[in-house]
Amino acid sequence: MRESTVHRLEPRTFYYTFGPNEPALTVKSGDVVVARTRDAGGFNEKMEPMPEEMKQRNDATLLCERNPQVGPVYIEEAEPGDVLAVTIQQIKLNREHAWSRHRSHFGSLTGEVPGKQLFLNEPVPEAKFDWQLDLKKNTGILELKSSKQKRVEIPLHPFLGSIGVAPRFGRVETSLVPGEFGGNMDCIETREDSILYLPVWVRGAYFSFGDVHAAQGDGELCGVALETTAEVTMKLDILKRKSIDWPRIEDETYIMTTGSGQPLIDCVRLATVELVKWLVDDYGFEKWEAFQVISQAGTMRIGNVVDPSYTVVAKFPKKYLPA
Amino acid sequence: MRESTVHRLEPRTFYYTFGPNEPALTVKSGDVVVARTRDAGGFNEKMEPMPEEMKQRNDATLLCERNPQVGPVYIEEAEPGDVLAVTIQQIKLNREHAWSRHRSHFGSLTGEVPGKQLFLNEPVPEAKFDWQLDLKKNTGILELKSSKQKRVEIPLHPFLGSIGVAPRFGRVETSLVPGEFGGNMDCIETREDSILYLPVWVRGAYFSFGDVHAAQGDGELCGVALETTAEVTMKLDILKRKSIDWPRIEDETYIMTTGSGQPLIDCVRLATVELVKWLVDDYGFEKWEAFQVISQAGTMRIGNVVDPSYTVVAKFPKKYLPA
Amino acid sequence: MRESTVHRLEPRTFYYTFGPNEPALTVKSGDVVVARTRDAGGFNEKMEPMPEEMKQRNDATLLCERNPQVGPVYIEEAEPGDVLAVTIQQIKLNREHAWSRHRSHFGSLTGEVPGKQLFLNEPVPEAKFDWQLDLKKNTGILELKSSKQKRVEIPLHPFLGSIGVAPRFGRVETSLVPGEFGGNMDCIETREDSILYLPVWVRGAYFSFGDVHAAQGDGELCGVALETTAEVTMKLDILKRKSIDWPRIEDETYIMTTGSGQPLIDCVRLATVELVKWLVDDYGFEKWEAFQVISQAGTMRIGNVVDPSYTVVAKFPKKYLPA
Amino acid sequence: MRESTVHRLEPRTFYYTFGPNEPALTVKSGDVVVARTRDAGGFNEKMEPMPEEMKQRNDATLLCERNPQVGPVYIEEAEPGDVLAVTIQQIKLNREHAWSRHRSHFGSLTGEVPGKQLFLNEPVPEAKFDWQLDLKKNTGILELKSSKQKRVEIPLHPFLGSIGVAPRFGRVETSLVPGEFGGNMDCIETREDSILYLPVWVRGAYFSFGDVHAAQGDGELCGVALETTAEVTMKLDILKRKSIDWPRIEDETYIMTTGSGQPLIDCVRLATVELVKWLVDDYGFEKWEAFQVISQAGTMRIGNVVDPSYTVVAKFPKKYLPA
Repeated sequence: MRESTVHRLEPRTFYYTFGPNEPALTVKSGDVVVARTRDAGGFNEKMEPMPEEMKQRNDATLLCERNPQVGPVYIEEAEPGDVLAVTIQQIKLNREHAWSRHRSHFGSLTGEVPGKQLFLNEPVPEAKFDWQLDLKKNTGILELKSSKQKRVEIPLHPFLGSIGVAPRFGRVETSLVPGEFGGNMDCIETREDSILYLPVWVRGAYFSFGDVHAAQGDGELCGVALETTAEVTMKLDILKRKSIDWPRIEDETYIMTTGSGQPLIDCVRLATVELVKWLVDDYGFEKWEAFQVISQAGTMRIGNVVDPSYTVVAKFPKKYLPA
Repeated sequence: MRESTVHRLEPRTFYYTFGPNEPALTVKSGDVVVARTRDAGGFNEKMEPMPEEMKQRNDATLLCERNPQVGPVYIEEAEPGDVLAVTIQQIKLNREHAWSRHRSHFGSLTGEVPGKQLFLNEPVPEAKFDWQLDLKKNTGILELKSSKQKRVEIPLHPFLGSIGVAPRFGRVETSLVPGEFGGNMDCIETREDSILYLPVWVRGAYFSFGDVHAAQGDGELCGVALETTAEVTMKLDILKRKSIDWPRIEDETYIMTTGSGQPLIDCVRLATVELVKWLVDDYGFEKWEAFQVISQAGTMRIGNVVDPSYTVVAKFPKKYLPA
Repeated sequence: MRESTVHRLEPRTFYYTFGPNEPALTVKSGDVVVARTRDAGGFNEKMEPMPEEMKQRNDATLLCERNPQVGPVYIEEAEPGDVLAVTIQQIKLNREHAWSRHRSHFGSLTGEVPGKQLFLNEPVPEAKFDWQLDLKKNTGILELKSSKQKRVEIPLHPFLGSIGVAPRFGRVETSLVPGEFGGNMDCIETREDSILYLPVWVRGAYFSFGDVHAAQGDGELCGVALETTAEVTMKLDILKRKSIDWPRIEDETYIMTTGSGQPLIDCVRLATVELVKWLVDDYGFEKWEAFQVISQAGTMRIGNVVDPSYTVVAKFPKKYLPA
Repeated sequence: MRESTVHRLEPRTFYYTFGPNEPALTVKSGDVVVARTRDAGGFNEKMEPMPEEMKQRNDATLLCERNPQVGPVYIEEAEPGDVLAVTIQQIKLNREHAWSRHRSHFGSLTGEVPGKQLFLNEPVPEAKFDWQLDLKKNTGILELKSSKQKRVEIPLHPFLGSIGVAPRFGRVETSLVPGEFGGNMDCIETREDSILYLPVWVRGAYFSFGDVHAAQGDGELCGVALETTAEVTMKLDILKRKSIDWPRIEDETYIMTTGSGQPLIDCVRLATVELVKWLVDDYGFEKWEAFQVISQAGTMRIGNVVDPSYTVVAKFPKKYLPA
């Protein structure tokens, strides 16, 4: 077995899209990538804003300046039909501050996304929230100004809000969108010690990532989590010819599938169909028996209901898999 | 304080609707009701089918013969604008057998409900699954016939699949439908030691219940859980003039709200808005701070995505409430 | 052939629900009913409001006081599985005034219905619009107060906004809801000289109607049409054992089917499946050829996107039917 | 005024995406483009299939080989914030044959799109339908093989199924998708003598088009229209700094807006909001009066309910506009 090369990637520019963009780094299957991410608004670990020259802009094109992505990383062995296994070895928070906000035209309770005005009533008022991160206790603290409760302190569970490859069929998607390529899934499951399996749609895979969240509730309801920065360490392995249709995740307890789309029920369906396939293909379940056992012992989590496509994670406990 | 009267209700007939039907029992606020339920298909604890004369049928009307309901129970003090607090004291399984099935035109992966054919392709094939319940170990066992895995044994968590009152605005709904009146929510949270708060829409409330599930995965994906029977003990208290819009649930760990409807995203929205209201009205949170804390520390669970209306439960940890 | 009896019905009370309510009139198949309707807000042809004693209220129940219904009419021959053919012989407007409005929590661009708050932003402001009806010219005139355009005059096309029977499975629905029973479909196709075919779900059918609109755009977008009153003449015929699943409509040019539900795409699907069935059952089309011809030569119209269930009408030109 | 240059474009390659692809032609505002399109399956006017070397493939990328696009055409004056007005001067059918089909995983009554399996039941069976086009009578004829009706002859109304520019925010979309960039809207309104207004998102606009339909019903229900070829003549004008959010269309009778997305109700909302804006910005309507008049006198048409995003067209009669 070849020894892993560890690549420390110091991003000089950031993309706001998932696609076959100019690679920032080329690696081999089995290599490890270490990089510091910027937060969803482009700020770094010192809260310095993104310099204009770091924004990868085709100068003739409007940007959606959310979720700047580190990368892309070109993986030499990756070909369409392969799977990229991303082992998230570490997400090391490196800032004692996270912010969240309500934006006027974003979030689950306004029903709108940028460029898509659905209603005629007044939008949600803007508001910003500053969370203090206690990195030793691994908690986030919010001082409440107008409530009886004066302070909320919640445990942190850092994860990558967006992580993905170049999409299917030559598409290029913004870093605000999740899909069959991963992307902005905003799922708490893409955290330390989990493995994310991404289908490869374009030669080289074009892997990129960013948008670290220190914590987030189910659905990311207000549209914005505890936005912060981290140093991330990931191992990238190409599994040859192991076709999957949607991103899958694995941790100690569960095998998991994701489905992203609109309407929300389709996310449930996509993830469930993919989970049935997984049980059938890799674990010897008969299709309808797989569906029955998932129906009685499976769980689901709503990743996000705020991005242009929503995301649901379907989970099956490993303890019910054959040995 | 008045002593509780315990009413042992032996149902002679069963309704297939939630509405102001002829009461089977009249009680006072604070009383306790004990009754044995029949399963979703009408079978009792001895697997005897429902006799025709026990089906409450306006003889000129087609029935939807699913989820026969015990009751209704008329609560003397209940008036529109009140809340009925149902403390589920015990759900005692009394049959060592549960069944599940795939039906051709029901379930999350066919997209259809009775009387609503949405597609032209062939329906899902019918299949039935027999689960053995080990009531001592509190587990359910399914023998798999066609899979590599030969047997799955899962923990039981019995709950009432349908439990509700007469709906708003003089409506009568079938026992297949959840809504602002509770009903067929198919939420695992209506279990022992939880309190269900139901808004009262009609004088007397007309409380009824049934459809015990021994276990169920999130979403009740195939449309049918581990259908069985139980002896259920519930305490009924009327809270005067404590207006709520949707059923709420409370247990040791969470305060919870439900939202039922179509499409699924609306369930998320209804439950979230109700949860914001709860934090504001009873716990002194300012509206937008409540929304922020829910967004970061709240969780959700998909109750069902198979009934004519879907149900989502939004949860907020009690540990973040003011003392 | 039996001679038609013409029944002039002078309503003394009005229901706000579709269901097996106490009949106002019993007729035989083939009879004609003539009645004056009240508008959606309960006003009569003289703009007099509904007296409280005319509102059919179970005094223990909250009402949804919209769309008061004339009836129900009990048709002696009607049994579940039959079809009630309603020939709308005349809709004679009898008031020179119609009103429309925007309500805060109703309409397509707020995303909410009574009792279902989906969003946290401010609702649409209330506004009322008075349309003058020129019954000779058959036009409606609106004076605009704040626009460059000072006046709009549009042709009238009066129709019954709500018209239906008692629903399936013993349900009772409010007069705000459309469904397999007809109801508040808000479709411009239920107008003079058309025939509405309603499936009979309960013995006697319990036919009722109201909510005349002088005109309305597709979708009834703001939630309220040109609300007015009329004298309506309809012939009621029972077609024995001619099973249909959803209301159908026929005029000189089209055969039409309706589908009501949420989400909107399901309305499209329900109406299309019903139209395929009609072509197959009554006109000798093979299923997939029927679908092909509908796909290329069929049209659709969005009836409403504002009621708790939406409605779509699918249309097939009679000229492509076999002679 | 500068004289129009007429460019006859003979495509040597075809793209399957909308995006800033290598231009096939550069023109000035005011110029006219004439080109022959290939059909949705890549066949030309002689029913010759697309040679592999004509498919614009990044050789490492999977293609979605539907709707090959002529172009893109780079328009020199076009900048983000401008509008491209496409006057469709002629769509001259040049083949006496059109085909349609049902595909297993596509169309409104299967609920699936390529790469997105939503259900576990059997897909719709494949079927192909050959329509003969009588270009003199301007009709399409289908022989029915299994129906009582032996033959259907319908009028033709040729239009461009897909027509658009490079999308917003640097995205690249497949030629199967409609959106704020136009694209695969499958709307019968993009026909001869209409003007399509497309927002410019990328310098140069990158206009492309194809997928001519000889006829199509509302919704394109089976997923495939009367697929054929044509010679198309279009005049391209850049309107400077005339910001619009969604494609708009104008003909002799109507001003029209489009909305594309999922779920279908959002298409209705997007198109309606855009229509309100148009009446307010260009015709002096006050916002709520505009909404009222649209609600009573506007119509809508469902373009497609089969593509990954659906499309609705909202229409307002020009006769109600100020002179």
